[in-house]
Parts: sequence; C-alpha cells; structure tokens
Amino acid sequence: MRPQDIIAIKRDGGELSDEFIRKFIHGVCDKSWADYQVSALVMAMFIRGLSTREGETLVREMLHSGEILDFSEIAMPKADKHSTGGVGDKTSLIIAPLVASCGVAVPMVSGRGLGHTGGTLDKLESIPGYNVRLSTGEFHSIVGKCGFAMTGQTAEIAPADKKLYALRDATATVPYIPLIVASIMSKKLAEGLDALVLDVKSGSGAFMASEKDAAELARAMVATGERFNVKTQAVISDMSQPLGKYVGNAVEVYECIKILRNEIEPAAQPTWELSLELSARMLLLAGVESDLEAAKQLCVSKIENGEALERFRRNIECQLGDPTVCDDPDKLLDPNIRTVSIKAENEGVVTAVDTLAIGNAVSEIGGGRVKADDTVDHAVGFASDIKIGDRISAGDELGRLYVRNEQQASSVLPSFVAAYSVDASSDIKCPDLISKVIG
Amino acid sequence: MRPQDIIAIKRDGGELSDEFIRKFIHGVCDKSWADYQVSALVMAMFIRGLSTREGETLVREMLHSGEILDFSEIAMPKADKHSTGGVGDKTSLIIAPLVASCGVAVPMVSGRGLGHTGGTLDKLESIPGYNVRLSTGEFHSIVGKCGFAMTGQTAEIAPADKKLYALRDATATVPYIPLIVASIMSKKLAEGLDALVLDVKSGSGAFMASEKDAAELARAMVATGERFNVKTQAVISDMSQPLGKYVGNAVEVYECIKILRNEIEPAAQPTWELSLELSARMLLLAGVESDLEAAKQLCVSKIENGEALERFRRNIECQLGDPTVCDDPDKLLDPNIRTVSIKAENEGVVTAVDTLAIGNAVSEIGGGRVKADDTVDHAVGFASDIKIGDRISAGDELGRLYVRNEQQASSVLPSFVAAYSVDASSDIKCPDLISKVIG
Repeated sequence: MRPQDIIAIKRDGGELSDEFIRKFIHGVCDKSWADYQVSALVMAMFIRGLSTREGETLVREMLHSGEILDFSEIAMPKADKHSTGGVGDKTSLIIAPLVASCGVAVPMVSGRGLGHTGGTLDKLESIPGYNVRLSTGEFHSIVGKCGFAMTGQTAEIAPADKKLYALRDATATVPYIPLIVASIMSKKLAEGLDALVLDVKSGSGAFMASEKDAAELARAMVATGERFNVKTQAVISDMSQPLGKYVGNAVEVYECIKILRNEIEPAAQPTWELSLELSARMLLLAGVESDLEAAKQLCVSKIENGEALERFRRNIECQLGDPTVCDDPDKLLDPNIRTVSIKAENEGVVTAVDTLAIGNAVSEIGGGRVKADDTVDHAVGFASDIKIGDRISAGDELGRLYVRNEQQASSVLPSFVAAYSVDASSDIKCPDLISKVIG
Repeated sequence: MRPQDIIAIKRDGGELSDEFIRKFIHGVCDKSWADYQVSALVMAMFIRGLSTREGETLVREMLHSGEILDFSEIAMPKADKHSTGGVGDKTSLIIAPLVASCGVAVPMVSGRGLGHTGGTLDKLESIPGYNVRLSTGEFHSIVGKCGFAMTGQTAEIAPADKKLYALRDATATVPYIPLIVASIMSKKLAEGLDALVLDVKSGSGAFMASEKDAAELARAMVATGERFNVKTQAVISDMSQPLGKYVGNAVEVYECIKILRNEIEPAAQPTWELSLELSARMLLLAGVESDLEAAKQLCVSKIENGEALERFRRNIECQLGDPTVCDDPDKLLDPNIRTVSIKAENEGVVTAVDTLAIGNAVSEIGGGRVKADDTVDHAVGFASDIKIGDRISAGDELGRLYVRNEQQASSVLPSFVAAYSVDASSDIKCPDLISKVIG
C-alpha cells in the first residue's frame, strides 16, 4: 500500500484501519512519507473527519513513536498539568513546586512561546543560568531530588508530533479537535503520569475562543486520558483577559515568586486562585487528598509555611539557576528597562479586553516570538491592575509597559489602548475564572 | 496573506478569489509555497470542489505561468488533437501528417508513457535518430517546413502544471475533473491554436472508465476551450479494448506507417477509423472544410495519393530520424526480438478485455514505465487480431508477444490470457468506436 493509496481512502471519506494509521505515523518518523503526502492526508483528515477509534489510534501511534518515560523508581504518585495556552498564563511555575511540596511528583515537559502565547521554558530562562535542556537522566534525577523538574520536549518524546505540528501550522490544519488531542495527549501520556489536569482556556486570548469549543476539546482530552489509564480532569478557565497582573517573561516569574512568598498583589489574585484550583485537583486525582477543600487547605499551608518556595529554590539550584531570586524577586527585573504608563482615553466600565492583541503586542516588542526562530527579550512586558468590570476615568492608568526604549513603547502603545473596550453605561461584571470542570 | 490563510479558505469550503488563485500558482512556480502547502490546498480543492469561475481562473493562471506559443507567422490555421490516453492509442502519428497535408498546421506537444498508457514521444523515439527535444525555434521552423512538428513539453510551457501534476500523482489528487481540465487545457491553450479536438477515452483501459465521467470531463474541456477562444470539440471513444492491432512503441509506429502507406491490416482498422474521424473534425473546426463527409474524403485522398506519408517522411528528416522507415516499415522491428504466441484456453465469445492489465503487462516487460524514471525498451510489445464479440476456440491465437526472451514471455503470459474474458453463450457485439461527440 503506497502512501497515495492510504491518502485516497481518507480523501473519499473512508475510515483508516489501525494498520494504515501506523504506517502513516511510521512514514512521518522515518521520512518514507514525503512532507507533501503527510500534509495531504492531514488536510483530508481535517475535512473528512476522524472517528473516535481513528483518533485514539492516532494518539497511540504518536505516543509510541517515541520514548515513554518511566518514573517507577519514584515512589510518589506522578501528576502534571497542561494548559492550552494564553496570555499571562504562568501557573506552571507555581503549581509544580506547590504540588511537589504536597507529595506528588511533577515531571513537567513544557514548550516555548509562539504568537500571542508565552511559553514556560522562556519564562524559566529569565532566571539567570536556569537550564531547561535536561537529558533524560538529569530529568529523572531532578524529579527525584526536588519532586519536580521542568524541561523542553526532547527529540525522544513523541517525535511524530514535532514534525506533524510544524506541517499543520504551515498548512492551516491546526484547529481540528482530534488532531489537537493527538498532539497534546501523545506528549503528556509519554510522561508516565498517574494523573493529569488540563487547563483549557476560553475567551479572546485562547486558542479555542468559544466556551463550547473549549468544552468539546476538554471532553475529548479527558476521554483520551482515561482510555490510556491516566486519571484526567479538565478545567475550563477564563482567558477573556490576561491572567493575573503581568505579561512577559521575567515579570511573570516575578509574579509567581511573589505568590510563592505569599506576597500576593491584588491583580495577581486570579493567578493564585487558578493555580490553587489546578494544584488541588492534581492532589485529588493523585490520591493524596480525597476532598477538594482539604486539598486546597494543604496547598495554602505549603505556601504559608514556605515549603512550596523552598521546593522552587531547590529546583532552581538543581537546574543551575540563581536561587537568590527566591529571596529577592526584584533581582529578576532588568534595571535598564523603563516603564511607560498607558493611560485610558475614556471614562466608563471596561467591557472587554482584546487579549490576543495584548499577547501579540508583547511578542512584537520581543517578549515573545512572531516567528518560531525569533529570540526572546526576557525583560520586556506589560502589567495591569485593570480587570473587566472595573470603572475607570480618562487619564487613569490602564497598565504599564516594560520596554527597552521610547520608540518601542510608541510603536505598540496604541494597540494596548485599543485592546480595552470601555462603555460608559455598562454594568458588566468580571467573568468567572473557572466556568466548568470536566471529568 | 500567507499560504496557510489562503488554504484555510478552501479548507472551510469557501471560494478563492482570482487574486488568491494567482498567488497560489505564482507560489508553485517561484517556490514561495512549500510543496506541503501546495498539496494541502490541492487536497482541499479536491474534497471541497472548485466553482466554474475558480476552475477557469486556475486554467488561466497555469497557462500564463509559462510561455504561450505564437505561430502567427504561419498563414495556415493551427489545430491539435489531445487524447486522455489509453492502450494502443497511436492516432497522433497518423493525424499530425494527415491534417498537415490537408493545409492545417499541427504544433503538437506530447508526453511520455506512464503506467498502462503509452506516450507519443516514446513511440517516436523508436524511429532511429528521431529527436523529440526541440527548442522553441526548431519547433517553429519544423512546423513551418512540414506543417507539423512533435515535441515534448518544455520547461517554458505551463511550468505550474509540471510541478502540480507530480504532486497530485503522489498525493491521490489526480482524478478530479477541474484539476484534470486545468492540467490538460493549460498546456494545450499554450500552443496558440485555432482549433482543438479532444479524444476522451472510456472503458477498461481509460483513465475515466465510465462513459458518464468521460462525457463530464469532455464537456468541461470543451467549455474551457471555447472560453479561451479556441474552437473545441470532444469525441468519446472506446477504450474497452486496445486500439487497433499493436501495443508497444516500434510496433505502434509500424502500424501507423502501414496506415499512412494505405496498407491497412484488418485489426488496425479501428486505428484508421478513429484517426480519420479526429482528423476530419480538426479540418472542420479549422475551417478548411465545412462538411464532415467532405473532410473525411479529403483525408482519404491524402492517404491514397501518398501526400500524408510524404509529410511524415519530411518531418522525420527535419527531426533527424531515419526517413527510410516510411519505405520499409519492417526496419522498425528489431531482429533480436522473438514473438511468442498467446493461446486461448476456452471456446466462446470474447466478452471483455482487461485493457488496463494489457497496458500494465506491456509496461512490465519494458514497453512502458512502471515508475516515471524507468527506461523504455522500444522493441517489445503485443499484437492481437481478436476483438470483443469475436468467437474463438481453445488453442486459437489470442495475440502475440514481442519479447527479448522466453523468461519475459512466461512472466506476463498469464496476464494476457486472463485479460480476455470468454463466455460460451454470449452474443455480445464489438462496441462502437465512437459513442458521442461533444461541442
């Protein structure tokens, strides 16, 4: 059976056998399928659709295209969190040390930022010296020592996904749920987890803007996790405005360390609330606690007694970063950066935030990547105390830009001002941080 | 607008603007679109469909991706014939000199064989020395001198098609009528014609096996020709059995020269009939005759008085081949070739011929190409005097193989025997050679 014969089946709306899906994924990995054959089949899958069985086989084959980690040498239960990405979405840096301090190991494989979304690896690299390129051996050893480790996707984990994702990104075949599920779950299932909590974003800064689509994606991922014997739950969380106070890299790590230090600024409260919710659910799924409130209480106690911060400090040491940022978070802020205030032009209630535009504007000044091979300026960013539902007057500060120079500021200032919709007569309230829990 | 943004429109079933189709074809030619982006869009076109306007724009952009020949220096009307391909389909070699001898120039751009179908260029190359790689200048000059010339597709004519066809072949996106029309018509319209006759095959050896599909393709090509101001007509002709007597390269040229010499073997009669019909229609469309019967009479007279053969001789000289094959066609037959008789196993009436299997078997012994880069053995082939509707007895000769050795013969003999269905009680008649004329 040649690639084109397998492609023709899906082209005509047929179902692919397990064997054909296996041949496809093998072909992606060993390059016996040309890129143009892979993209043609993926387009046919996108338009014609995949059955539940085809989707499941795709996950399995992508998962088995690479190494599956085995942390059985660690006695603790293993859990991870995955977020579909957003703006100011920094909970991983709080959740990993916090959950580890509660007795659950977190072997976290993260990504880099692209477009309007940030990436955990970029954020971590704003800690001087922090190494996110761990070998499998280092990864195991650090999870063992600190209870968690944070590394990038290696070539060994789900290599089919790396190739497929790059092709999908270039051929308009990203936004199809079974392909998204296969991409995310093939990587997460390779971490050898007992439990997985998914943070599926909805709203103007989310990949799946509508709550309906987000819920559909969440249900599909939870079903896949369960089918592969990983306890899985999904939370639909709000991304209709940036999460917390800061957007950028160093500034987001600053926000997280302040939270781990129990010095939570009011605008950072949602970051903490969401981190707490996700952490508590990880503890529940991992069997460490049997009641959500008790799990939250345990987390709060680990913040209050400093154990979560201590975990992070130990991890930074293990990953060769400067642990003193835990004692003095201001060290993260580059003294060469200037802050520029963004003023509101109109009076009224903030009714909507174009979160995508904010994410893109931060990327444009170097805080993220417009193209995959851009370099990131960890020091630039944005901060805001304003939330949807807040009443403001003309001239009030909407937020502050962290920039290298005036020119940078003036190039993106209009985008930030335009991102905030203000209506004099609205009585809209701040949307709920968590709208739904699935699984 | 990035390639993926254009792809997304067709992915979602939208219509592509003329500008986007132009960008696509430019991207194919200047390689600013990656192959995997091209194949993803082509798959989306295949599944979602193209409107008449999109199809027309595709033809126009592919046509204008290359050079459009201008034969205005030649006072005669210009006409060509194109066949969708089959087994034993050799009419070009008769039509071109015959029509030229009747006062219509034929600037014929032909292809090579692939799979079960032969190619005019391969056939011509069985004439010792014959050169099918003409420069544009040579092509013009030979059309001027002989009234016709036969060359391969140059890199200058519709380069977008060459690239697209190769990708479609590898990604299961060949059999979609608007893409087929764009591929054929972009090349034919580049020949600077006044008139075009299309020979659309149907039956077991045709690309479009059903007459309904063949008629649909024919209608679409005729409409496209007319829209581009080329008088166009299509004939649906039978390919439920090989055309005429011989299948191969040298043997097919042999059959043609015998016809041009007015020495027509009974089994070659359909080759002559179809050539006559297509030639007469070219003369009608080109305005040389106004009545089909008169046009056929003119053609017959050019065979009888030797002028058609004389044209072919002059062309062979111009294209550096050995013109004495016109005087002694047996010169075409390699003395090292042995013939092996294929015997019928059962008695009865021949009810069907698996023409595809015969074409593939001839390719397998070297008479065609299984893969695009195979070399062709011009001397091997197949001949048969048996037609559908003929009554045969066990032991009768179904046909003869022209092979290099016994081993070659025994490897394919069973395919030839199996290709003929024989039923003792059938009274089936030989199918009509021409079932329909469109346009």
